[in-house]
Parts: sequence; C-alpha cells; structure tokens
Amino acid sequence: MDRRTQASLDGACLLQQIAQLGALGRDAEQGGRTRIAFTDADRAGRDLLVQWMRDLDLEVRVDRIGNIFGILQAAPEGQAHAPLMMGSHIDTVRNAGALDGCYGVLAGLAVLRAYRAAGVLPTRPLVVAAFSNEEGVRFQPDMMGSLVYAGGLAVQDALDTVGTDGTRLGDALARIGYAGSMEPGAMVPHAYLELHIEQGPLLEAEGRLIGVVESLQGISWQKVTLHGVANHAGTTPTRLRHDAGYGAAACIAFLREQVVGAAPHTTLATTGSLRLEPDLINVIARKATFTVDLRDPDEARLQAAEKRFADFLYPLAEREGLRVEVEPLVRFQPVAFDAGLALCIELAAQRRGLASMRMTSGAGHDAQMMARIAPSAMIFVPSQGGISHNPREHTEPEQLLWGAQILLDVVQDCLAISPPRPGQ
Amino acid sequence: MDRRTQASLDGACLLQQIAQLGALGRDAEQGGRTRIAFTDADRAGRDLLVQWMRDLDLEVRVDRIGNIFGILQAAPEGQAHAPLMMGSHIDTVRNAGALDGCYGVLAGLAVLRAYRAAGVLPTRPLVVAAFSNEEGVRFQPDMMGSLVYAGGLAVQDALDTVGTDGTRLGDALARIGYAGSMEPGAMVPHAYLELHIEQGPLLEAEGRLIGVVESLQGISWQKVTLHGVANHAGTTPTRLRHDAGYGAAACIAFLREQVVGAAPHTTLATTGSLRLEPDLINVIARKATFTVDLRDPDEARLQAAEKRFADFLYPLAEREGLRVEVEPLVRFQPVAFDAGLALCIELAAQRRGLASMRMTSGAGHDAQMMARIAPSAMIFVPSQGGISHNPREHTEPEQLLWGAQILLDVVQDCLAISPPRPGQ
Repeated sequence: MDRRTQASLDGACLLQQIAQLGALGRDAEQGGRTRIAFTDADRAGRDLLVQWMRDLDLEVRVDRIGNIFGILQAAPEGQAHAPLMMGSHIDTVRNAGALDGCYGVLAGLAVLRAYRAAGVLPTRPLVVAAFSNEEGVRFQPDMMGSLVYAGGLAVQDALDTVGTDGTRLGDALARIGYAGSMEPGAMVPHAYLELHIEQGPLLEAEGRLIGVVESLQGISWQKVTLHGVANHAGTTPTRLRHDAGYGAAACIAFLREQVVGAAPHTTLATTGSLRLEPDLINVIARKATFTVDLRDPDEARLQAAEKRFADFLYPLAEREGLRVEVEPLVRFQPVAFDAGLALCIELAAQRRGLASMRMTSGAGHDAQMMARIAPSAMIFVPSQGGISHNPREHTEPEQLLWGAQILLDVVQDCLAISPPRPGQ
Repeated sequence: MDRRTQASLDGACLLQQIAQLGALGRDAEQGGRTRIAFTDADRAGRDLLVQWMRDLDLEVRVDRIGNIFGILQAAPEGQAHAPLMMGSHIDTVRNAGALDGCYGVLAGLAVLRAYRAAGVLPTRPLVVAAFSNEEGVRFQPDMMGSLVYAGGLAVQDALDTVGTDGTRLGDALARIGYAGSMEPGAMVPHAYLELHIEQGPLLEAEGRLIGVVESLQGISWQKVTLHGVANHAGTTPTRLRHDAGYGAAACIAFLREQVVGAAPHTTLATTGSLRLEPDLINVIARKATFTVDLRDPDEARLQAAEKRFADFLYPLAEREGLRVEVEPLVRFQPVAFDAGLALCIELAAQRRGLASMRMTSGAGHDAQMMARIAPSAMIFVPSQGGISHNPREHTEPEQLLWGAQILLDVVQDCLAISPPRPGQ
C-alpha cells in the first residue's frame, strides 16, 4: 500500500490560517503587519498557533528560548524514533507580508492535519516547529531560536541579549509567557524540512513552481570607510586630490565588474548603503562609508571574492592617498543541504508534473541552523516580483498549495522509506 | 622719472586692517567670522570700510545694489579718463576666514593709501570696489553685485530676489542703509584688477608666490537621479538587478577615469554628493542621486566632457534597466582674462624676483563679471593647504604683502603706460 495516498491536504484551511495569522499585528495604514519577536503582537500570533496545534490534539512543547513545537506522536512501533521536523518562524519584520515564515509553519501544520484527517499515525513522530526571533529586528543575531536549538549559541547568552530598545531578551520572553522549560535541542530530528517563499525573482523568471534548495549561500558583510581630504572641487587639481567619494565609487564598480565578473553565475556583490561627508556638490568628499555584501554558495569562491576585493581596495587607497578602515560585520559559511532530501523533493515535483529547479538560497533561514544537527532541505515557491519584507509580498494561492503538497509528499516519502520498521 | 618709485605700500596698516575687519562678525566658538551679505555684521564691515575710505579722503559712492566705491580722483589732466578699478568683496560665508575677498579690497585701499602718502595724483582715477553679495549665501546667484554692475542682471530683478529666509533683497539692503543712488555700471573701468587668495593648493604645491590668473574655469553642475528597483541583495541574480547604486558608482568612476582622463591637466570632475535609497546593507538601491561638477577653462573641452559623460550615462542606464533624470543646476562658460594685463602681472613678479605661474581660477570671482565690461585680470597668492571658506584659511603675512606689492606695481605700470597723456 502506498501510504502517500492516505493523507490529503485541506488547502482551504491552510489558506484561511495564513490569512488569519496575517491579520494579527496589522499596521494601521500600510497594508502590512508587524509582529516583531517577543512583542504583544508576537504573543498573539503564538497564542493562535498554539490554539491551532491544540485543535489538532498535538502535544505542545515550548523550550527555554521560546521555540514552539507541535508534536503528532507516531504509531506505537515508531514512538522511539527520532521525529521528522518541519518548521520555520512566525515573527516578522516591520510592515511585513503574510507569508515569510508563517507559510512554512502553517503548511507543516497542514501536513499534520492531513494525517489527523486520514486517521493515520505516522511511522515516527511528526513535529511542527515555530522558531523564535528569526528576523532579528530587535534582538540580534537573527535566526536566533534555531541557532540556540542547534547548539550554536548558549541559551543563557541568548536570554541575556539586550535589544535595540534596551530590553533583556529573557525578560521580554517571560513577559509574553513563552519562556518554556524544555531544553533547546532536546529533540534531535531525523530530518528537517522547511517550506518557504523564495523571496527572490528566480522561480518566476524561469517559469518554475518548485525550488529545490540544495544550498544556502555564504555571506560576507563588511563596512568600509575611506578617509580622504575635503577640498574645493574647482581649485584642487586631480593629482592633488584625496577623494573618498571616487574611491568608494571605484570599489563599487570593481565589485560588480571584476568580483562578480569572475564568477557571474554564483557570486553576488551589493553595496546598498553609501554615505559621503560633507556631501556637498562642490566639496571633494572627506569621508565615504559603504557596505559590501558578498555572497556565494561555495566557500572557496566566497573567499576568492573577498580577496579579489581586498587586492583592489588597498592599492587603490594607496594610490589615491586614502586611509582605509574595514569593519567585518557578518561572516557565514555556505550551508550545503542534504543531497538525498533534495533529490526527494525533485522527484516529488516530477511525479506531480511540476516544473522545478535546483537553486541556492540567498536569504538566511532556520534550516541553515538545523542543518548543523540534522539532514535538512528547503522547498521554495515563487515570490511575485521577488518581493518580500514588504506588504506587497505575494504568491498565488495555487502555488502555495502546490508547495504544501510537495512538503506532504516528501514527508510521506521520508516516512515510507527511511525509518527502520519492525520486522524489516 | 619712473612713477613706480614714488608710491610705497604701508604693509603694517594693510595687515592691521585685515585683522580689524576680520574681527567683525566673529563666531562665538569656532574661530571664524560670519558676515553674510546685508546682515548687521555685513553693515558693520561696510561701515568700517567706508570710514577707512573717508580717512583717505576718497569720494565714496554706493550704487543701487549696494556696491561701494572709493574713488581717488586723478590729476587734472586725467580726470576725464576711465578709472582703473581694483576690487573684490567683504561679505563672507558662514564661519569664514579673514582673507577671502577682504584681502583684495583692503589691498586696493592700500594702493590708494600709497598714492596719498606719496602726495601723487594718478593719471586716471583709481577706484576700489567692494561688490555686494559675492558669496550668495542667502540671496542667489552669487557674485551678484558685480553681475548687476556688469549688466548681466537687471538691478530691479536683483532687488526683488527673495532669500532663503524669505526676505526681499531690496528690503534687506535698505535696512542696513546701503541702498545707494548710483546706477550700477555708471563708471566703466579702463581695466579691472582683483587680488585674491588662491583658495586652492597649486601655488603652495608648486612653490610659487604669485599666480597669474589668465582664465576662469567654465562650470557645469548637474544633478543625476537613477531610478532602479529595490530588491534583496541575497536572492536577486546580477542579471535581474536594476541597481541604482552600481549605476551611480560606474558613472563616478567613469568621470574620473575617462572624462578627466581625456584632459587630465584641465578638466576637473567631482561628485561631492551621493545618496542611496533605501540605504540598507542588504537591499539593492532603488534610487541614487548624485551631483556632477565638471570644470574646464576651455568651453570646447567642457562641452566635450559633458558629452563624454552623457554618452556613458544613457547606454549604462539602458543596459542596467535604470531610469535617468538629469537636472542642470549651473552652467557658466569659461572666462578668458586680458592677455596684456596677465603679461603685466607676470613681468611685475619677475622684476621683484618672485616665482610666478600662469593658472586658471577654479572658483568664481567678481573679476569674471567685470571681464564683461573691461579688460580684467587676477593675481593670486598661496592658500595654505588650499583651505578656504574655513577659519583655518591662511596665507603668510609676507605673502599677503608681496601680493599687494604686485598689485601696486601693476597699477603703476598701467598708469604709466596706458593713458593718453597731454602732449603725447
């Protein structure tokens, strides 16, 4: 008997829950919602999620960093097995869309609902996780709940984090009533699956419905400050200039033309922030401060990009008489997801006749933390116009449902194939 | 008899007057002074200057735009000749140095004092002019007094100018008591000479004391806005980006490397102001706004620079999918000063054994307006570190005195050589 046929998705319920959760923390004017981690709006979202878990008769557990787990116990012979975990987050940035994170959590819940509806107990426990503070708006770092869960940050250190508003994280968490007692990492999953909107334009541009995420890019963030000399734009000959603005521009142009140019299909370089001082039309810039965001799914190539940039920056500064300050801000190595799970996703899409593509994730996700302790993978569905962190974030309902279907299919495959069943 | 030997400069008096005028409008903390045109501080400066003119028994005239003229009448046979005019301005920017403008006016006064002290009447009238509102801080355009005097702006239009504080210029001028009755342009000079600090680093860098200013650069100011699409720095492949920040950087690098590169000894290009939106590290810039300041003493080369930039900008924008807005802000053609006067300055420096160099002026000066109605020239002395518009503006007293000496020498040459004298 093919167990895949037994459980089927209640698509209407999933879409309704996305809308209901998205209605909490609504912004007055801009059409978005704001549920920053550990605020009252976050608590309202958590309360609703926990209610829905209880409606499905799941066991609800909360760990010390506030991660919420809804657990569907396995049939008796599978109860000792490591659980299969699905998850994401329900906190948001300011003025967010309704899908980022929430879609993955509620689709996980829809998978468990399908099992409940079919009256079938899984061959190992099925868990839906909602990780705390993925967005990192008030308390840094982001992806904190999954980072703590995977052992990358001590829970006490996380609780002692002080937010941008001066609040201690542990106090904020206790205030909303989600300081649980479970030790983070207590349930080590057999595998971890995260369904998410792409938050980028690739699937739409390529006309594919399912993204098989086989890796997550490494990220290198630096802040570069060039110190020059302010001088009159009309009276200072070019050879006597120490123009911080030109130095910054040359760097940014080099990043695109030479650093990205060296690996145009994988390396990304962005300068999103740049400020000149004194910022006057007829004064050569005394100071330029700009950010360098480099990404590549391959660590060696990411290092090569960093080196290529440094090899340009310092001689340029020498030549122009500029003093350089480089402040490293963030450095994450790339994450390779589980190849077997990726294949499983790809085959599931193929069986359903859905166009899929292998891809890397440009954004950070809880899955990259969970990959430290379990085979992990991600499934992407298209983001219209690549827009996210914005009220205009949108994925067609039909696409959302196909994504959830693939999640269910992959869960069923994992349960059907992988656990050592009694008598085998 | 060589008339040059008869008049000699009172250097101590000149330096003292520079210090006394520089003490008016002193800023509380920053060591500078602020005498913005038509304010009480400007009135105090004007009153002091007029007093010094009266002390020399000069005829003082004020025109309708507030330009002040101190006139030393000629010997009887020269009274009908066009006057030789020296001048500059005594208004300042905010937190200014003591030399910009004031030096030229007071050195002119020192020349007249030398004639008075020698008891010699010149062969044509000698005039010292202090032009109104050269700096253009509150009322635009700058160099307004000389522009009106030279017929480039109708006096009524100038008087009706509304300042950044909402004041009408004519009212501000009347309030300080300097709305004179003389028609601007009533005295057309035989020649106009302006002594000024360089406000740039060239004389110092080249180890020269006297700058023979043979031209004034043309200026082209534009504000360029590139409109792109804000997108996630991690999920948007390079080929799908519309990165306004990269577009701006490529333009600025091109300006230095290709536009200046095409005429490295004359063309200057500066981007002093650049702003990105939303200016976030991990968001591709939706918008970049930057200024382009191009200068060249030759109009054909200035036009070539403008064209070279435009020929880069539009194809780049097309390639990157950016929308371009260009707003022309300022456009002045270059001014060529009188070749005979320049030679006269050069020879005077040579006779005194002072190292001189031919140069162009990067900044705007009243002389460029006066060049419309009279043969004109400028004499520069070094600015320490090229610094101006700043309390740290400095020229060594000895250098100031050598500059005034050259002015006196050139005046004597002009008077000795040029006027048609009776019986010749």
